[in-house]
Amino acid sequence: MPTWKALPILSSDALSSVAYGTQEILLELGTVGVIAFYYALPIALAILLLIGVLIISYRQVIEAYPEGGGAYKVATKNLGPAWGRLTGVSLMIDYPLTVAVSISAGVQAITSAFPASIPYIIPLTIILVWIMVWINLRGTSESGTIFALPTYLFILCMLLLIGKGVFQIATGGVHVASTLKAPTVIPAGLTLFVLLRAFSSGCSAVTGIEAISDAVPHFRSPSARNAKSTLLRLGILLSVIFGGITVLSLAFGIHPDPTGNTSVLSLVTEKVFGRNWVYFVTQIATMMILTFAANTSFNGFPILASIMAQDKNFPRMFKNRGDRLSFHYGIITLGILSSFLLFVFHGKTDNLIPLYAIGVFLSFTLAQSGLVRKWWRERNKGWRRRLVVNGIGAVITFIVLMIFSVTKFLSGAWMVVVLTPILLIAITKIQRHYDSVASELRIDLDDPLPQRGSVIIVPVAGIHRVVAETIAFAQTLSPNVVAFYIAFSDEEVHRMEEKWEQWNKGVRLVSFVSRYRTIVRPLIEFVERIESRRSGTETVMVLLPQFVPKKWWQRLLHNQSAWRIRSILLAKKDVVVATVPYHLHEVKVAPGETHFK
Amino acid sequence: MPTWKALPILSSDALSSVAYGTQEILLELGTVGVIAFYYALPIALAILLLIGVLIISYRQVIEAYPEGGGAYKVATKNLGPAWGRLTGVSLMIDYPLTVAVSISAGVQAITSAFPASIPYIIPLTIILVWIMVWINLRGTSESGTIFALPTYLFILCMLLLIGKGVFQIATGGVHVASTLKAPTVIPAGLTLFVLLRAFSSGCSAVTGIEAISDAVPHFRSPSARNAKSTLLRLGILLSVIFGGITVLSLAFGIHPDPTGNTSVLSLVTEKVFGRNWVYFVTQIATMMILTFAANTSFNGFPILASIMAQDKNFPRMFKNRGDRLSFHYGIITLGILSSFLLFVFHGKTDNLIPLYAIGVFLSFTLAQSGLVRKWWRERNKGWRRRLVVNGIGAVITFIVLMIFSVTKFLSGAWMVVVLTPILLIAITKIQRHYDSVASELRIDLDDPLPQRGSVIIVPVAGIHRVVAETIAFAQTLSPNVVAFYIAFSDEEVHRMEEKWEQWNKGVRLVSFVSRYRTIVRPLIEFVERIESRRSGTETVMVLLPQFVPKKWWQRLLHNQSAWRIRSILLAKKDVVVATVPYHLHEVKVAPGETHFK
Repeated sequence: MPTWKALPILSSDALSSVAYGTQEILLELGTVGVIAFYYALPIALAILLLIGVLIISYRQVIEAYPEGGGAYKVATKNLGPAWGRLTGVSLMIDYPLTVAVSISAGVQAITSAFPASIPYIIPLTIILVWIMVWINLRGTSESGTIFALPTYLFILCMLLLIGKGVFQIATGGVHVASTLKAPTVIPAGLTLFVLLRAFSSGCSAVTGIEAISDAVPHFRSPSARNAKSTLLRLGILLSVIFGGITVLSLAFGIHPDPTGNTSVLSLVTEKVFGRNWVYFVTQIATMMILTFAANTSFNGFPILASIMAQDKNFPRMFKNRGDRLSFHYGIITLGILSSFLLFVFHGKTDNLIPLYAIGVFLSFTLAQSGLVRKWWRERNKGWRRRLVVNGIGAVITFIVLMIFSVTKFLSGAWMVVVLTPILLIAITKIQRHYDSVASELRIDLDDPLPQRGSVIIVPVAGIHRVVAETIAFAQTLSPNVVAFYIAFSDEEVHRMEEKWEQWNKGVRLVSFVSRYRTIVRPLIEFVERIESRRSGTETVMVLLPQFVPKKWWQRLLHNQSAWRIRSILLAKKDVVVATVPYHLHEVKVAPGETHFK
Repeated sequence: MPTWKALPILSSDALSSVAYGTQEILLELGTVGVIAFYYALPIALAILLLIGVLIISYRQVIEAYPEGGGAYKVATKNLGPAWGRLTGVSLMIDYPLTVAVSISAGVQAITSAFPASIPYIIPLTIILVWIMVWINLRGTSESGTIFALPTYLFILCMLLLIGKGVFQIATGGVHVASTLKAPTVIPAGLTLFVLLRAFSSGCSAVTGIEAISDAVPHFRSPSARNAKSTLLRLGILLSVIFGGITVLSLAFGIHPDPTGNTSVLSLVTEKVFGRNWVYFVTQIATMMILTFAANTSFNGFPILASIMAQDKNFPRMFKNRGDRLSFHYGIITLGILSSFLLFVFHGKTDNLIPLYAIGVFLSFTLAQSGLVRKWWRERNKGWRRRLVVNGIGAVITFIVLMIFSVTKFLSGAWMVVVLTPILLIAITKIQRHYDSVASELRIDLDDPLPQRGSVIIVPVAGIHRVVAETIAFAQTLSPNVVAFYIAFSDEEVHRMEEKWEQWNKGVRLVSFVSRYRTIVRPLIEFVERIESRRSGTETVMVLLPQFVPKKWWQRLLHNQSAWRIRSILLAKKDVVVATVPYHLHEVKVAPGETHFK
């Protein structure tokens, strides 16, 4: 992948978050009053510093793991499996949130431009998610170029916007709003807590930076160097656009829309360009880059699930990266989770932000700590500098994590704080279970195979073609075949036994009058009887015929009891259950009885 | 069953319908104006006549079918299976409607007495339905006496109400409202159509009369005579109560509540007794008898479904009256359908009435026509009188059916008119399918069993205990056992083949590198290859190991692909699929890896 293609594909997540970063800061400061808006500037500055730290730290991640790191791998390798699992959990929580936040912000760009769409926010977001699901299920191998275009269009729009806006301010073309001037006194109510809350909200603009370090092998060689320079370019672009939008929104005196229907970015764009075609192009480019940002999660989640499943930290069905179905499970799971989030939080970015960055910063912290450990252990050339850089990164991201968790706790962060340990326990249990199964299954290659015989039970409901074929098949498998008949009355038994006698194919019929008015229990009891009589040296197999009809609705007309018998027998007894399919041919019968007379 | 017990149990459906009959007439007349209320009197008179005709007709049904008729049986026997199916369909539609109407009217008695419950109408109705479902799933064998009490209480309340009301009017204790006086001119807007609509609505009070004739064998002997006298008593009670309530509501100038939150019966009761404890007892008795009326459907529906399934007119799983599960299917189906109706029609009786009586009157008409045919065919002593009685019954109920269908068409009857032929086609298709299967399965008892061999395929994912046990079991069944291994790369194949060689248990391993990134297709192709090589004289059986974990959540961690392979193989190929269960023992493993370090 050449860097001109890698930049848009891998940084859509990071770049797109400028679409809501400034807005979230202003919304928090707005709880104090318009006069507090000015403090968005120092906060934005702090976030730019944070971006700088992260860029430098992650350049070192690229150096350390040129084969593509990923926080889960870095933490597992350097801190141990338990910390790796914690990282995995935080990423697992993060992926659906990224989808939900990006899609909701994308729809916000639409509702900003076309207010008529406001009543349809929730359906719009959920439809977008499932379009993503559908595209990803079909496979996106050749989609690189498609993704490149809108990202460059977005970057172009943003640079144009900032350029024209700054030019207007510099030339005095607009009246600079009072919000850009520092208040002479600290506004009443503007506590440190509020500032930290606003800072936490702004940190949502930092998410997505790690994507490049996860995908180093995809870069054109020399891949590590190309990845590093791409990361640097991303950092510069991100800083310019985020800083620019923040300054412009203060200069133009933008007030964020508390209903969340119109985005701050839309308000700024409208002030600078007017509501003309450039404005609409910008909104559409914003929507598109945000949708592609969501798409990066659809790429990342199945890969993470697969890696974690390989480490037995996630259900096995997600495991095979080669198997198309494993991937499908991952994509559909992500689609369901993010649709759920969008539904519960009414498809509004502002509602989702308090949950968003915890997972990101937890994984940042753990990945950096892992690297610190690695440098310390290896102590190669230049390890001290590297250790210091990642150490600072780890400490700073940890502090942000703490700030975020505390200041946003009541507005929603508690959900993530509660969910994380629960999920951690769950995947630990999963791992223990798989370990225990593996140790149970292990055998010595020299052990002989167990020697057993077999008894075959064929439940019969009468004498017809399917019964005959099943009995014949059973006789090829074992000399011990028993037919088992359940009746609800003695007359039925008598009739059946007589007919069986007449048929006489050398198979013993055991009849049973069900006292329980059910079929399954007598069968289980019969199996138990056979097991006890044969002193357990023989495996019991039950052959159940199953009709395979030609049309789907005909399935509802057959096999209900076979299906039930099968699942109960397997769950309760050590019995092999074989299903003998009988494909119905649908012979036409005389329709005499089916017409009105 | 003594008659004192049979009356309440079998007539709760019919008696309870007086709780809404008058109300529905007044609501229709109310579309013209209060002045039209008077015409409720002649309409009620017409309905009383109709009740008379039905009572006489159904006494003949009892005579003709002392073993318990039921419209479905009568129509099937005398008119042929197609007409029987039509009767069955109309009853099938009717049962959930009876439940919905009775339960909603019962809840209306509650909301009338306790207006605080009005916001909870829909949940209340649905909860009541599922309480009914639960009671019926547990079995109601000993519930006769419980049902008797509230019905007698309701009858007592009604007779008290009518007695006291008539006494008040007779003694001039109340001012008789103008609505009881015939208007001097016909009110503007009171067309014949409106009168017929009102009559149709009132016919809802007639439903349930057939119940006694369905249950003749349950009567104490001489059962037919006891049933006939019970039916007569029901007719008299029904006429007195329905007529009485209609007269009282006119005399007291009751206006029905258009919101449907307060019932006319409640308004009358309140006028006569005041809002004292007698009023509340009456409301509760009303609610109870209506709930028991719903219960009669829960008894009737599974029986009808079972009879129809025996005639192959309904899915087989409903068939076995002896099997507890068949009954459960019927009860739960009825619960789902009536909950759906209550939800869609907001739990309001008034919304459900336009759908209600079509099924009832269609089955009335068909049952009577069946009897006419029977009398004509048999021409026993007195057949002329009998034929005339049932002929009149058939004609009158058919006229009511037509009046109902036309006048209520737009308000909801169209749904039933559309649904009836659709269901009729559906069950006709069901019957044809079962007939065709039966003819396909029929064999001659002297035919020899087919002679075939067997090939057993064991898909393996590695070499472990389960694979060893499955291979050992396969070897007891057939000399032709093949292990089948699917890999995603050549190295995997190489590694596996080497290990297999070393293990060497006399079973050939076939390996396969999946180009499709899926497991199922290579397996199907392999089965096809074996089938073609062996020229189809041998049955192929695939043995799939399945883990049976100890805890439910662990199921999510296993068997996904086994389950999928099984269902695809069975649907596509003529292959026997056997599931070999392996019960996990959950050995504790060293927890070293699961703790934070």
